[in-house]
Amino acid sequence: MSYLGVGVSPGNVPVSHGSNLRVIDRRVRLAELVLRCVICGLAILAAALIGTDTQVREIFTIQKKAKFTDMKSLVFLVIANGIAAAYSLVQVLRCVLSMVRGSVLFNKPLAWAIFSGDQVMAYLTLAAVAAAAQSSVFAKLGQAELQWMKTCNLYVKFCNQSGEGIASAVLVSLSMMVLSAISAFSLFRLYGDNKGKNSGGW
Amino acid sequence: MSYLGVGVSPGNVPVSHGSNLRVIDRRVRLAELVLRCVICGLAILAAALIGTDTQVREIFTIQKKAKFTDMKSLVFLVIANGIAAAYSLVQVLRCVLSMVRGSVLFNKPLAWAIFSGDQVMAYLTLAAVAAAAQSSVFAKLGQAELQWMKTCNLYVKFCNQSGEGIASAVLVSLSMMVLSAISAFSLFRLYGDNKGKNSGGW
Repeated sequence: MSYLGVGVSPGNVPVSHGSNLRVIDRRVRLAELVLRCVICGLAILAAALIGTDTQVREIFTIQKKAKFTDMKSLVFLVIANGIAAAYSLVQVLRCVLSMVRGSVLFNKPLAWAIFSGDQVMAYLTLAAVAAAAQSSVFAKLGQAELQWMKTCNLYVKFCNQSGEGIASAVLVSLSMMVLSAISAFSLFRLYGDNKGKNSGGW
Repeated sequence: MSYLGVGVSPGNVPVSHGSNLRVIDRRVRLAELVLRCVICGLAILAAALIGTDTQVREIFTIQKKAKFTDMKSLVFLVIANGIAAAYSLVQVLRCVLSMVRGSVLFNKPLAWAIFSGDQVMAYLTLAAVAAAAQSSVFAKLGQAELQWMKTCNLYVKFCNQSGEGIASAVLVSLSMMVLSAISAFSLFRLYGDNKGKNSGGW
């Protein structure tokens, strides 16, 4: 445990924090902020696209209305993306605050909270997307063996709009995966010792 | 970067690796080994339960056969769990080898490979389970709005067995999530510096 502080420029950057690590820190924080903004936007887009998705069709004088609440997996997807958007907004504010202050994350309980939140969000959004994608496949192609008929040839506009929503939700899910790896990095390097820097190639 | 080596017992344990960290290391490696064995067993069980699931019923002299290949999400689940079982078996061998040798993971490329593999497996098994669970809900409850009728009242034994398989796959998925957090810990602490130990409460 040596706090040498040699060659560290003055300012609010903690001592013994090498310039190499500081560059990584800055990049990681920037990537985190950008990803959280992207997730927030895309999650709102996905929830809005699916949540406003309806289509009315007249079939032999009978009016039939397709809405997203007919399919529970779409409701789950809207809820999951709503939660992801709200969560990301809070996290964006935290990121901006920590960037303005110039502080580096060395608070283990906070790092654990962020890590846990990101993990839950990544798995939640992925599960929601997988379930919704499965439902869409049934709606688009049907399942002849079970006599489940395809419904997308009746409600073309409805299916296209929910397809766009699901595509947006897939991007949310992928971004959350990258983000959960970033927050794992931010947390677990707090448990490291100096050995790693010498033994690894990169 | 100081390699003091003070108070470190002889053996193949690297120097400057505190006894506290060595205890954590041992526990983490044991937890990893146990989890990987559990995953291997449960994934084989899930794949076997679903892969052998068939039921023949006679309805008005017409013989109808339900098999897991009728539902693509069950095929995906069998494949995902097959891959998870094979992957876990390889990882169990690696764990045992590193425990016999008494070596600690300080090889960054290997840690990156394990981390990436575990992440992919966690997301793959979760997506497969979510899709299969969605299909099962349709099969069990039907979807009245789309005139998709429930089929589980016709094929009770088939549905029960695939339900058990899905339950087993859910456990595989949950264990993979814990494991991917463990491998994230093993990787990213290699990027740490000593500061974390002093500033955090735990």
